[in-house]
Amino acid sequence: MKGIAVIAVCAAIVGLIVAVVLATWIKKQDQGTDRMKEISGFIREGAFAFLKREYKIMVIVILILFLLIGFCINWTTGILYICGAVLSVLAGFFGMNVATWGNVRTANAAKEGGMNKALKVAFRSGAVMGLAVAGLGLFGLGMVMVCLNLATVVQCVTGFGFGASSMALFGRVGGGIYTKAADVGADLVGKVEAGIPEDDPRNPAVIADNVGDNVGDVAGMGSDLYESYCGSIISAITLAAVASSASGGIFDEATAAIFPLIMAAVGIIASVIGILLVRGKEGSNPANALNAGTYIASGIVVIVSIILSKAMLGSYAFSIAIIAGLVVGVAIGKITEIYTSEDYKSVKKIAEQSQTGSATTIISGLGVGMMSTVWPIICISVGIFAAYFATETVGAGMGMYGIALAAVGMLSTTGMTVAVDAYGPVSDNAGGIAEMSELPEGVRNITDKLDAVGNTTAAIGKGFAIGSAALTALALFASYSAVTGLSAISLLNPIVIIGLFIGAMLPFMFSAFTMNSVGKAANQMIEEVRRQFRSDEGILAGTSKPDYAHCVDISTQAALKEMIVPGLMAIIAPLAVGIILGPEALGGMLAGALAAGVLLALMMANAGGAWDNAKKYVEGGAYGGKGSDTHKATVVGDTVGDPFKDTSGPSINILIKLMTIVSVVFAPLFVAIGGLIG
Amino acid sequence: MKGIAVIAVCAAIVGLIVAVVLATWIKKQDQGTDRMKEISGFIREGAFAFLKREYKIMVIVILILFLLIGFCINWTTGILYICGAVLSVLAGFFGMNVATWGNVRTANAAKEGGMNKALKVAFRSGAVMGLAVAGLGLFGLGMVMVCLNLATVVQCVTGFGFGASSMALFGRVGGGIYTKAADVGADLVGKVEAGIPEDDPRNPAVIADNVGDNVGDVAGMGSDLYESYCGSIISAITLAAVASSASGGIFDEATAAIFPLIMAAVGIIASVIGILLVRGKEGSNPANALNAGTYIASGIVVIVSIILSKAMLGSYAFSIAIIAGLVVGVAIGKITEIYTSEDYKSVKKIAEQSQTGSATTIISGLGVGMMSTVWPIICISVGIFAAYFATETVGAGMGMYGIALAAVGMLSTTGMTVAVDAYGPVSDNAGGIAEMSELPEGVRNITDKLDAVGNTTAAIGKGFAIGSAALTALALFASYSAVTGLSAISLLNPIVIIGLFIGAMLPFMFSAFTMNSVGKAANQMIEEVRRQFRSDEGILAGTSKPDYAHCVDISTQAALKEMIVPGLMAIIAPLAVGIILGPEALGGMLAGALAAGVLLALMMANAGGAWDNAKKYVEGGAYGGKGSDTHKATVVGDTVGDPFKDTSGPSINILIKLMTIVSVVFAPLFVAIGGLIG
Repeated sequence: MKGIAVIAVCAAIVGLIVAVVLATWIKKQDQGTDRMKEISGFIREGAFAFLKREYKIMVIVILILFLLIGFCINWTTGILYICGAVLSVLAGFFGMNVATWGNVRTANAAKEGGMNKALKVAFRSGAVMGLAVAGLGLFGLGMVMVCLNLATVVQCVTGFGFGASSMALFGRVGGGIYTKAADVGADLVGKVEAGIPEDDPRNPAVIADNVGDNVGDVAGMGSDLYESYCGSIISAITLAAVASSASGGIFDEATAAIFPLIMAAVGIIASVIGILLVRGKEGSNPANALNAGTYIASGIVVIVSIILSKAMLGSYAFSIAIIAGLVVGVAIGKITEIYTSEDYKSVKKIAEQSQTGSATTIISGLGVGMMSTVWPIICISVGIFAAYFATETVGAGMGMYGIALAAVGMLSTTGMTVAVDAYGPVSDNAGGIAEMSELPEGVRNITDKLDAVGNTTAAIGKGFAIGSAALTALALFASYSAVTGLSAISLLNPIVIIGLFIGAMLPFMFSAFTMNSVGKAANQMIEEVRRQFRSDEGILAGTSKPDYAHCVDISTQAALKEMIVPGLMAIIAPLAVGIILGPEALGGMLAGALAAGVLLALMMANAGGAWDNAKKYVEGGAYGGKGSDTHKATVVGDTVGDPFKDTSGPSINILIKLMTIVSVVFAPLFVAIGGLIG
Repeated sequence: MKGIAVIAVCAAIVGLIVAVVLATWIKKQDQGTDRMKEISGFIREGAFAFLKREYKIMVIVILILFLLIGFCINWTTGILYICGAVLSVLAGFFGMNVATWGNVRTANAAKEGGMNKALKVAFRSGAVMGLAVAGLGLFGLGMVMVCLNLATVVQCVTGFGFGASSMALFGRVGGGIYTKAADVGADLVGKVEAGIPEDDPRNPAVIADNVGDNVGDVAGMGSDLYESYCGSIISAITLAAVASSASGGIFDEATAAIFPLIMAAVGIIASVIGILLVRGKEGSNPANALNAGTYIASGIVVIVSIILSKAMLGSYAFSIAIIAGLVVGVAIGKITEIYTSEDYKSVKKIAEQSQTGSATTIISGLGVGMMSTVWPIICISVGIFAAYFATETVGAGMGMYGIALAAVGMLSTTGMTVAVDAYGPVSDNAGGIAEMSELPEGVRNITDKLDAVGNTTAAIGKGFAIGSAALTALALFASYSAVTGLSAISLLNPIVIIGLFIGAMLPFMFSAFTMNSVGKAANQMIEEVRRQFRSDEGILAGTSKPDYAHCVDISTQAALKEMIVPGLMAIIAPLAVGIILGPEALGGMLAGALAAGVLLALMMANAGGAWDNAKKYVEGGAYGGKGSDTHKATVVGDTVGDPFKDTSGPSINILIKLMTIVSVVFAPLFVAIGGLIG
């Protein structure tokens, strides 16, 4: 086993080397004018100011949880917790660092080399994040396999997943609050009150807004998928023993445990190939190049999975599970596009209904969001069905391992997926820098085009993140049942129903917290921008510089303060239910949170994306265009959609995964107590 | 058993006699001026035009489902289906008829006799609906017990519940679409475009709007609670055999089956006493009188349940279940009030945040709606816990019967609850008639005061309706497990998880349908009102009469047309999942729909109620009062909230109950097939 694990580690290292090479290439590109360097310097400074403050808190959290795990469970799990957390932090740091290199160089590439060059720089910046996420995740898990014996791995590797999850909380929830507080604050005072355009350097919150793209949309999204990536592999490892005994001796536990790592290794190599093949053609839609890369990477994984499934596990059935996961991931992305892109009828309908005012904008947007849940849920259901029953035919009891493999399959091309997703905020930032540096309009046109594609890829990425969170949480739920040794978690047991109700309630409560947090933080930002405009009239006149750092500071403080309550909730809820009501009730809670959470997350993310693009559609000239009453109505929709799609919706991914991994890690404790009153 | 069942029938008859006496008393009251009679005549005409059209479709639906049940299950169940449906229709007809008598007489009582007299007429009109719902429900179920032997009752009585559910679909969903299409249409053209006040007789949609109060808020709400009322009793009856065997011979099945009917009989008598004791004091808050009546009725049920629990079933444990249900019902009402009344901080916060525009109105309202789910869910969980474990101590396996008794307890005072709830729309209508008949301002002040209290009682009623739907659906879910004979519906079975996902998705899909329906129907209404204003300028000048009937017709047609898809969905979804994926998957689906549905319904109803009252709070003078920008922002919130609280939210109650009862009725079929692919 250890020999094969070394292969996985090597593949991870290949991915990381490519990431470093790309990063070096990016750094070598020209940064453009002094003004551009200055602006990009502000953004970098703000982003690292946030990270630095965040790290201080993270260290405390990591230490507390390390001790908690060590005392309650065992110290190896605690140490793996630290590994999972530290690698997550590293991936975020590395990826975001390069993204802040990439933004200004993308702007300059658009200025000097045109569309194609700009696409290349922006996409490669995203690719570094993608390869860092997948590479460090696989590297860590591979090293765990290499260094520890299998029994210890199975017992303790969930700690690694918990580390990934708890850091994702900071990345996705904290980052989400940061980015939207800055965005909403900058928009409401700048665009609405002062009447200055977006990304205008006179707006004191404009740097915070651009920092937010990096903090929330690059690092936050990366930490979310890093968590899913590790979680899916970990779940398969913990189910390997069940799978091997279900196989009736066809393969042993070690093979079943190493198989997901090998598939992840294949996925990294496939992603590297896909990434290197992404090349824009001058004049063609950049989306085509990105899609081609994704399809190539997926195709490679499909073919190799068929071969390895038969070679390692003795049956093609396992490749069906992996392919099912991959297909579901791609399908959810496509469905998301249909509901959130202005090329399709849902967005157009919202724009049309906005003619009767903002109330109908909201009603129809919520309607679209609700309706958009139907097909993803059907896809996920079909995927679960295929993965389960295909593998269950190999041997009774194998199905749960099959579901975990579906999650592994869906996430195998994470390197590519994150690359495409992170390309969006880099382009967005590049546009901001171009605007603030007053580059010629032709440059803005290029960055706008890249940004428009980036909006769609970001929406698709959000759908993918939710789908992968659902499958990962489900796979971890299977691990939970294996670890607790529960033979059934029956809905006919009222304590399970109580758990189900509480679980379904948690995403609603969590969303209420995160939405209120954005509101509160945005209000502080509004006050600060107003204060600066009042105290120095030279700011709006363009003669004196606004105090960017103070706005960055407000977003930073607010984000870190506001994530405490929802963060604690995600950790305490499973502990409380597990200890008080027992492991069965906790199983019900996890299922309830999973089902309701996925629905709510899909609704919020897609409604938000649809509102955003309905606004863009009207700005493109429909129904009176910019400045019309219809446009004003769509702006209301977009503002409501901002926390929906960038804070609350994606944060639910973290909630459901984090609660599940906490349950898996502390399962021995719950079983020992058996429920104080349950 | 039959002897005791006769007692229940007698109590039901007492309730119905009191209803008839009250109705006669109301009819004797003076209708006021000719203008008042004319207006009230229009409303009656419109309401009955809707009913007539609705009945035509209902007859077809009843016949089809009768044949379907007859062929697939058995003909006795089919006949009981017809009984349940016809009694629901009768209750709706009788109650709404009297409500349309009551509105004009309330207006006249306000004019002639003052506050106290008006309260009396309005409340008694509501009381007729309340006693009709409970009286006819208990009469029907009592007669079933008297006429059939116990084995047949247990086997077939679910058909009665299905009848109640399928008619509630028409009442709540159709009525909900009707009332909001008229309301939103009337408001958007009348108030916003033409600048005429609410309830102005020049508005062609004004009669449709007032008809909607009767159709949706009186008849629709009544049919919803009729369904819960019957469903809870039916569930307890079907679980009687399990309960009796769990009791180890302490009581037999017949006693366990008759006990819920006797508690319902006690509830009716208690409601009659409560209703007759409601008396307003001149100058005091009418809410106090209504609350006093509710507490008296509940108190009587509590005391008698303790006595009967011991006397009939040999243990006080069963009264704990009943009291748990009652307390949860009252508690949810109180919590709803806290989140939706302008006396508390949530509504004030929405008003405050509306100062920064309608986007923040929406965000904070949704936040309040989401947060408002927490305590009701905790109350329901505690209620389930108490009811289950208290009765489970009597004998292992008794707990599910205990949960059904909790539902019976919560709904035992339905007569009183519906009376308080239906009083709201009657007062609202009275206000409309006073406005349209140009009665002096003092009269409007009285009706406004009654209406304000009515708004709160309506919001509380909505919370209660959701809570009772949750508990009833859960009880019926227990019946489902008993009927299918499933020993477990385990979340470790992926087919159950697939069911859970699909189930959680259905309320979102259903809400999307109903929200879009309101939008579409409101648009038709807007077009029609604009057309009338254009084609005859005399309408706005007040010299010629608008064509009210045409607007009534539009709402009627739209409501009936738009409810087809969601209605079919609610019936087909459980059939499809049960037949294709099998009874276990269906169990998962029901649980998923229950959990997600209750959450979504609570969120929508409470957000809607909070927005409504935030608007009223601003209209009361806060943050600039009527006409200010803050007011405009709150109007947007109120408009979004209209379909939330009066169509989509309450319709989910029907969805979860209807799907569960369909599953119970067709359970033998699903068990026989065993799932085509599951």
